[in-house]
Amino acid sequence: MDFAIPADVVALADEVRTFVARDVIRFENDARWGAHGPSDELRRELNALAAKAGLLGINAPREVGGRGIDHRAQAVLFEAAGYSMLGPVALHIQAPDEGNINLLSKIGTVEQKARYLKPMAMGDMRSCFAMTEPAPGAGSDPGQLKTRARPNGNGWVISGRKWLITGAEGAGVGIIMARTGDGPGDATMFLVPLPHPAFKLTRVLDTLDCSFMGGHAVIDIEDLQVSGEDVLGEVGKGFQYAQVRLAPARLTHCMRWLGSAQRAHDIAVAYACERLAFGKPLGGHEGVSFMLADNELDMHAARLAIWQCAWVLDQGGKGQKESSMTKVIASEAIGRVVDRSLQVLGGLGLTRDTMVERIYRDVRAFRVYDGPSEVHRWSLGKRIVDGNKLRKA
Amino acid sequence: MDFAIPADVVALADEVRTFVARDVIRFENDARWGAHGPSDELRRELNALAAKAGLLGINAPREVGGRGIDHRAQAVLFEAAGYSMLGPVALHIQAPDEGNINLLSKIGTVEQKARYLKPMAMGDMRSCFAMTEPAPGAGSDPGQLKTRARPNGNGWVISGRKWLITGAEGAGVGIIMARTGDGPGDATMFLVPLPHPAFKLTRVLDTLDCSFMGGHAVIDIEDLQVSGEDVLGEVGKGFQYAQVRLAPARLTHCMRWLGSAQRAHDIAVAYACERLAFGKPLGGHEGVSFMLADNELDMHAARLAIWQCAWVLDQGGKGQKESSMTKVIASEAIGRVVDRSLQVLGGLGLTRDTMVERIYRDVRAFRVYDGPSEVHRWSLGKRIVDGNKLRKA
Amino acid sequence: MDFAIPADVVALADEVRTFVARDVIRFENDARWGAHGPSDELRRELNALAAKAGLLGINAPREVGGRGIDHRAQAVLFEAAGYSMLGPVALHIQAPDEGNINLLSKIGTVEQKARYLKPMAMGDMRSCFAMTEPAPGAGSDPGQLKTRARPNGNGWVISGRKWLITGAEGAGVGIIMARTGDGPGDATMFLVPLPHPAFKLTRVLDTLDCSFMGGHAVIDIEDLQVSGEDVLGEVGKGFQYAQVRLAPARLTHCMRWLGSAQRAHDIAVAYACERLAFGKPLGGHEGVSFMLADNELDMHAARLAIWQCAWVLDQGGKGQKESSMTKVIASEAIGRVVDRSLQVLGGLGLTRDTMVERIYRDVRAFRVYDGPSEVHRWSLGKRIVDGNKLRKA
Amino acid sequence: MDFAIPADVVALADEVRTFVARDVIRFENDARWGAHGPSDELRRELNALAAKAGLLGINAPREVGGRGIDHRAQAVLFEAAGYSMLGPVALHIQAPDEGNINLLSKIGTVEQKARYLKPMAMGDMRSCFAMTEPAPGAGSDPGQLKTRARPNGNGWVISGRKWLITGAEGAGVGIIMARTGDGPGDATMFLVPLPHPAFKLTRVLDTLDCSFMGGHAVIDIEDLQVSGEDVLGEVGKGFQYAQVRLAPARLTHCMRWLGSAQRAHDIAVAYACERLAFGKPLGGHEGVSFMLADNELDMHAARLAIWQCAWVLDQGGKGQKESSMTKVIASEAIGRVVDRSLQVLGGLGLTRDTMVERIYRDVRAFRVYDGPSEVHRWSLGKRIVDGNKLRKA
Repeated sequence: MDFAIPADVVALADEVRTFVARDVIRFENDARWGAHGPSDELRRELNALAAKAGLLGINAPREVGGRGIDHRAQAVLFEAAGYSMLGPVALHIQAPDEGNINLLSKIGTVEQKARYLKPMAMGDMRSCFAMTEPAPGAGSDPGQLKTRARPNGNGWVISGRKWLITGAEGAGVGIIMARTGDGPGDATMFLVPLPHPAFKLTRVLDTLDCSFMGGHAVIDIEDLQVSGEDVLGEVGKGFQYAQVRLAPARLTHCMRWLGSAQRAHDIAVAYACERLAFGKPLGGHEGVSFMLADNELDMHAARLAIWQCAWVLDQGGKGQKESSMTKVIASEAIGRVVDRSLQVLGGLGLTRDTMVERIYRDVRAFRVYDGPSEVHRWSLGKRIVDGNKLRKA
Repeated sequence: MDFAIPADVVALADEVRTFVARDVIRFENDARWGAHGPSDELRRELNALAAKAGLLGINAPREVGGRGIDHRAQAVLFEAAGYSMLGPVALHIQAPDEGNINLLSKIGTVEQKARYLKPMAMGDMRSCFAMTEPAPGAGSDPGQLKTRARPNGNGWVISGRKWLITGAEGAGVGIIMARTGDGPGDATMFLVPLPHPAFKLTRVLDTLDCSFMGGHAVIDIEDLQVSGEDVLGEVGKGFQYAQVRLAPARLTHCMRWLGSAQRAHDIAVAYACERLAFGKPLGGHEGVSFMLADNELDMHAARLAIWQCAWVLDQGGKGQKESSMTKVIASEAIGRVVDRSLQVLGGLGLTRDTMVERIYRDVRAFRVYDGPSEVHRWSLGKRIVDGNKLRKA
Repeated sequence: MDFAIPADVVALADEVRTFVARDVIRFENDARWGAHGPSDELRRELNALAAKAGLLGINAPREVGGRGIDHRAQAVLFEAAGYSMLGPVALHIQAPDEGNINLLSKIGTVEQKARYLKPMAMGDMRSCFAMTEPAPGAGSDPGQLKTRARPNGNGWVISGRKWLITGAEGAGVGIIMARTGDGPGDATMFLVPLPHPAFKLTRVLDTLDCSFMGGHAVIDIEDLQVSGEDVLGEVGKGFQYAQVRLAPARLTHCMRWLGSAQRAHDIAVAYACERLAFGKPLGGHEGVSFMLADNELDMHAARLAIWQCAWVLDQGGKGQKESSMTKVIASEAIGRVVDRSLQVLGGLGLTRDTMVERIYRDVRAFRVYDGPSEVHRWSLGKRIVDGNKLRKA
Repeated sequence: MDFAIPADVVALADEVRTFVARDVIRFENDARWGAHGPSDELRRELNALAAKAGLLGINAPREVGGRGIDHRAQAVLFEAAGYSMLGPVALHIQAPDEGNINLLSKIGTVEQKARYLKPMAMGDMRSCFAMTEPAPGAGSDPGQLKTRARPNGNGWVISGRKWLITGAEGAGVGIIMARTGDGPGDATMFLVPLPHPAFKLTRVLDTLDCSFMGGHAVIDIEDLQVSGEDVLGEVGKGFQYAQVRLAPARLTHCMRWLGSAQRAHDIAVAYACERLAFGKPLGGHEGVSFMLADNELDMHAARLAIWQCAWVLDQGGKGQKESSMTKVIASEAIGRVVDRSLQVLGGLGLTRDTMVERIYRDVRAFRVYDGPSEVHRWSLGKRIVDGNKLRKA
């Protein structure tokens, strides 16, 4: 039992923090960051700065030039990067790319990796993960998957509607989840080079959040022909791979957003120490200082849960339960931290004059994606009740 | 003790509901509703429809053609109007105009009313209320007012910076709060026809919320000359009038937002009854149906608090304590209702495909303006502790 | 819509408050109030004082000498009485007697009323309501009723186990709920004079709460013979009557406990104004004064919900939904108020040196009985979801 | 960063769990456990069983025959022991003895240790810590200490009133905190053999909680003469030592109560899997299973905070901030867990038929002692605000 951060990770985290403070934060009000996230032009500029600082692709597998860091190191570094919502973009460790890179490196063929992994890892190519569907398709319950891939010669023909596909606009490759059989678990993943005329970007949705490049799109897949070589992993194992992708991807979200929560908190603390009300600084009012204390309590609990889950993954565990627990603990704690930070700022908090307003929107969305709290509580509760029956049997 | 709504109010509320459903909701995705609220062109179109339905200026004083309804009737009608965020705009009972009309009708001179009240009441002229200032000026603590009005001949010269001035862009008249003496309570209100070169609209702020016409502006008042006739009420009574304005204005916010919370809830209920997950409709999962139950509990509590406070005002009470209590109860309950509604909608809730996303932003802001919860808790707590000392003395 | 309390109720409430302050509170540390509630000897002494003050049986039907007050008047008077946990005992408006009197006056025969109602109404006889059963019998789900009444000649023979039967020890009459058929709704109520050898009081349970006379008992009903005249109301209508009893009974609990919450709050306020910590009275710390403010917010919301539900009942409504809502709102709000009051008192709050410790235990129990919050949320949620389907159909 | 529990600690924890399950739980309904805690006779019986199992004094310093385990091992072992409220009593690692042993071993003289430490460590002698005073003395704010020790020849004469002195009844030694000068920090600790006629046990308080041996007493210290050799540590360093004692003592409370929370949860889970309601086991209702999930989330967060703080102490840190944070996180999380567990049990939860009722009382008290949440939030908030000013300076 040891809570010390290894010296090399401490040093690297310091580099990340310095980089974010010096090279990233100044871009936060850049006009190229619009309602549907930062533009690719802005991203490339940030990536170049990260490359110069030796931090681009910090998380990529060693085989494509990255450092192959473990989940515990990620926990520290991604939090440091997340201090600016542009930090993960700059280091190219943002969602959904980070999860896609991770998945491809685990289950891609040599050819697939050759074609996609290297450019994905270093930001030359963005990617998207096309699983979610509008009602009545796959949402919280992936088992409702409606998109179909039908065998066709050596390959497959895919049809269906996807939505909330993050980063589809501008992506160079997509991973499509489609049903390939009639059993409840018969799903397969496919790789598709993008843009592709049969992978039709119908519209980019207007959403509450604003940090994801390309926003979230509605995609109509219309008789998209792929070859057998485009199957990612094995046919019929799509849902299993989705789980492989999900546990760590969910956790890296927690890490990044914890960094953003820390940022919101720091802004609130600085304001509370300066702004006077009723004869003293806001921070001299317990009504405010208790909120700041609660922020630290929430961040402490979230950070420890993240670290523990990262350790489980590093031990080779699947971390399904731990990542579910951490998602709920962290997303709700982070949500409260940013909500309080905004409240401490009062009217200022409602304006885009500080980053808190944008962080607030994005962390609200985080309580929904990667499994809303309710789905995790449902699965945790089921596990408890079913586990109890098993113990007895 | 009677909770029955008078028959005429029931009938009028039905008219408002019908009007909102038929004539207002279809404008909710009109492009003229931008980031800084609906445009005046859109507003005039909606006002015309309301006039046709006999509902425009429903809340205006009788002397200018309104119905002079009491606060309890407002409670019912404003909630009905708030079912669409455009409803109050259509009926011209939105903030800050509604509160300004009310204030002017109470303390304006015959001449001031002749000039401003009638056009304000029927939507021919919008107005703004310029009290709030950036740090270190008047925010939660109005006593920190920095804007000054200095005597100058028959009139005054006003200078200072205001911000978060809702509706300043496009307003035909402004009420400015300025310090007119060195005592802590020496403040005065002034009426200024707008636009005015010395009332400089420096910028409109980007904010989380999106329902207020003209958005929220930064105003630089640079040696603005007004005459003695432009004083609203008496010199030195500005803070008292601010209280006169605030208690009912705060309450009408609660009414309108309760209507919007009901809307968000209804959208969530409809979705929960349709969308399947894990083998049954979402609403068949207690994890969801409990959230819907909590929504009704919260709305019930908020509604009763609003009604009670409206009754206090109708009895001639100032309602300072009651409106403080109601602001906290209602704004926090409404915030929870909309948060849950969004959560029930899952990914859909994050998109602008339903109104919940926009309602969510606006009700978050409502926890800040008209006194953040913390200021109300502070004043309620002080009242309890001081009251206890007095009882003993 | 009117929140004024009628003058006669105001006057009567003042009498109740005076009586409680003068004649009741001084008995709170009387040794005759033990772990299983105040003794009957203590009760009779208190009843005599109430009779002298003209307040005994204040709630009884006119036909047996009471005042036949309506539910709204109850709301005011019962809250006043509840200011001491012994107040309802003194006035003989405590549970379960109050609900039993109410039920008997509604559905009893002339003979039953002659025999039981008058003594019950004035405290000459206590009563109990024997419905709840241990697992796997009737708990939150009354449909699981296991106790059976089998026809036998002119009458019935009843067998089964009941538990948590409040006030069974010392009761002069019991109402037994038993299954009288095989349909899911086939249940009947029976009146039994007590003590009775076949209504065996197996043990009185040790429980968290401490205010109910006779505590909560386990009862073994062993071939208890009753006649046809002992059926309360009609055969097969037991569950309907249980609902008739429950809605108002649940509401009077809310009223009484609100009075106790007010007491706990007042004790906390007085302490917060006196006890110094870190250089000022506790109440001068916002960390404490915000808690006191939250107490008032919670009590305000609870009180309004109670009043509204009382009004619904007075209009002849069944109030099933309203009493469910009020039970959840009030029991949870009251629980928070007393929890905060105890916390403000610190170490003192943990001791029996103030009444808060005992109130705390009892209001915790109140979140369980008369339907735990979860059952009410379940039924409210179901009503919402089912109602939505109906609206559409 | 490593969350693995060392193999020897795992093995020892298994022993503790086995011991508690086999030898301790069966005493939970022993009549010798009364309102003021288990009797010394019961304790000695349990200690004998622990000695037989090789587990008595598991936490004592090596110099007196204990194992000298570190704080991280404590975290695991104390949680295992706390699974029964009698577990810590059996192992003699309960409060206040555990903290007193720890303090004495750190700052006692050779003579003091010889006289007291060995018997204290192995349960031959109980001890108490007499710091807290009734208003207006030292409560949450130790600076208000009123008890005085005046120099007298070679020694001191102590006078004052203490209260809530846990375990005073039956203790063989007491540590008294008294003011020995006029400066705000001039306090000293004294050792007194008990019973002693001048250390008058005025009464044992009736309290909500019920697990502490000897209960909580009011002590009148009346001209108690002690010698210079009875000073514990150095004159004038009392407050510093109180901090030395407090951080780890507070943490061991968290550990033990976490074990009790786990117990309450397990009881609730077992019940939820058996008890039917509305056609399925309680645990099949999401309304219940979500509560169980929340229990695990809360326990997970509390456990990680405890472990991290234990690690800080093991690194030689004072852990003031960490133990404050952990106290708030753990005491509130544990309180929620037990509250939910009780609620899941429904009526059964209110009775002493399961341990949950008693655990509920005790964990409520835990939110008050060792610093109520409000004092910790106050100090955390102050640290944040002051730290921010320092960073800038």
